[in-house]
Amino acid sequence: MDSIQNRRTIRRYTDRPVSDALLHQLLEEAERTQTMGNLQLYSVVITRSEEMKQQLAPCHFNQPMVTTAPVVLTFCADFHRTSEWCHHRKAEPGYDNLLSFINAASDALLYCQTFCTLAEAAGLGLCYLGTTVYNPEKIIEILNLPHLVMPVATITLGWPDEMPQQPERLPLSAIIHNERYTPATTESIDRDYSAKEALPVNQEFVRINQKETLAQVFTDCRYTRSVNEALSQTILDTLRRQGFSFPM
Amino acid sequence: MDSIQNRRTIRRYTDRPVSDALLHQLLEEAERTQTMGNLQLYSVVITRSEEMKQQLAPCHFNQPMVTTAPVVLTFCADFHRTSEWCHHRKAEPGYDNLLSFINAASDALLYCQTFCTLAEAAGLGLCYLGTTVYNPEKIIEILNLPHLVMPVATITLGWPDEMPQQPERLPLSAIIHNERYTPATTESIDRDYSAKEALPVNQEFVRINQKETLAQVFTDCRYTRSVNEALSQTILDTLRRQGFSFPM
Repeated sequence: MDSIQNRRTIRRYTDRPVSDALLHQLLEEAERTQTMGNLQLYSVVITRSEEMKQQLAPCHFNQPMVTTAPVVLTFCADFHRTSEWCHHRKAEPGYDNLLSFINAASDALLYCQTFCTLAEAAGLGLCYLGTTVYNPEKIIEILNLPHLVMPVATITLGWPDEMPQQPERLPLSAIIHNERYTPATTESIDRDYSAKEALPVNQEFVRINQKETLAQVFTDCRYTRSVNEALSQTILDTLRRQGFSFPM
Repeated sequence: MDSIQNRRTIRRYTDRPVSDALLHQLLEEAERTQTMGNLQLYSVVITRSEEMKQQLAPCHFNQPMVTTAPVVLTFCADFHRTSEWCHHRKAEPGYDNLLSFINAASDALLYCQTFCTLAEAAGLGLCYLGTTVYNPEKIIEILNLPHLVMPVATITLGWPDEMPQQPERLPLSAIIHNERYTPATTESIDRDYSAKEALPVNQEFVRINQKETLAQVFTDCRYTRSVNEALSQTILDTLRRQGFSFPM
């Protein structure tokens, strides 16, 4: 499928609007994605207004796409709607727990990815913002997300105004295991990571961060233990506040 | 995209084999999926042997597809490989926490969904098994998954030998929210669920389960509070055992 093979993350968009007709068509087509018990445990908040984009931007570390994209989509794990359906139909929902969050988050992410594939096949460009789970409490407040709704992914969307280089990927040997998982060894790490580490773009990345290895750029600069641990606490607190309680 | 619009879950497969060449091509093409920091925090265990399918089957409540499909794929959230890369490159990984699990699970699910789209576009049929997170500890043991690897999705895959009816989906009004989330109301529940509840297939579902409403089939039979809570404890214990520690 060419649109998947040729995809790249798009962060700059033209002035051409994304019509509601097209957006709704893609969001509806994506509903064909498999979903737990056909419950569709997800929802999407569509942001078009300047004011709302300005509010969301700090949640995503002010990455410029949030305010420059014509559309921002926040995909949510959602057991609110299903639980309300139960309440209105003489049924007692029991979905305020970790398993239910994981099921709803899975539904939401699968749906999100089908939407991305459809949008890119239609010629749109998008950027997936992993920052959604870093500041969920602010996003929840801004978007008015109720009990049992948790944001899990954000997409900025528009017509592409750039054509960046495709980033490298690991060889398939790094990803697949036959019958049983084979833990990494010195040999498999060298086999799977040497080409990545040798790329000029990655060597430059090491140089400007004043590190010795590419791995150190990730552990010491981009995704550090201290930030990961602080954000883990935030996620846990936010999941509990949204009603997904955790056993001890 | 026709293959998405026409998709249905396929549980019966012909005898035609799925070649390694095709399988590897699809798994490699799916690597174009966006991924956190280009780290590709996922892996896939490919099951073809009868013996391994027999071992996996009980983890998925002996659903027949696990043993009758030519291929079973277990998609895993994987910080093992990346952490080993760090260890071999003078870097100290800090990915044994909840945030890192969520990041890796997101990567794995997005990758899985792109793979599903590509496989269905190639004419293959598949069934997504949500049971993966119900019995993770047994799957981990069978597949030899190391520290920082957690199974999050399983796919049974083959050439379709059935053409079931497409299940209904909710109207888009149930899924989307403009600018801010609008919590469900009596009116919105009736608007979004009435057609689903009126379908003969769903009315039959209520009748054979001897329930009063369709929602009760879910709360009282399919996804009950007691099972959800017991499985939440299992997931939490398993995540901790795999090294994704949880703050309190």
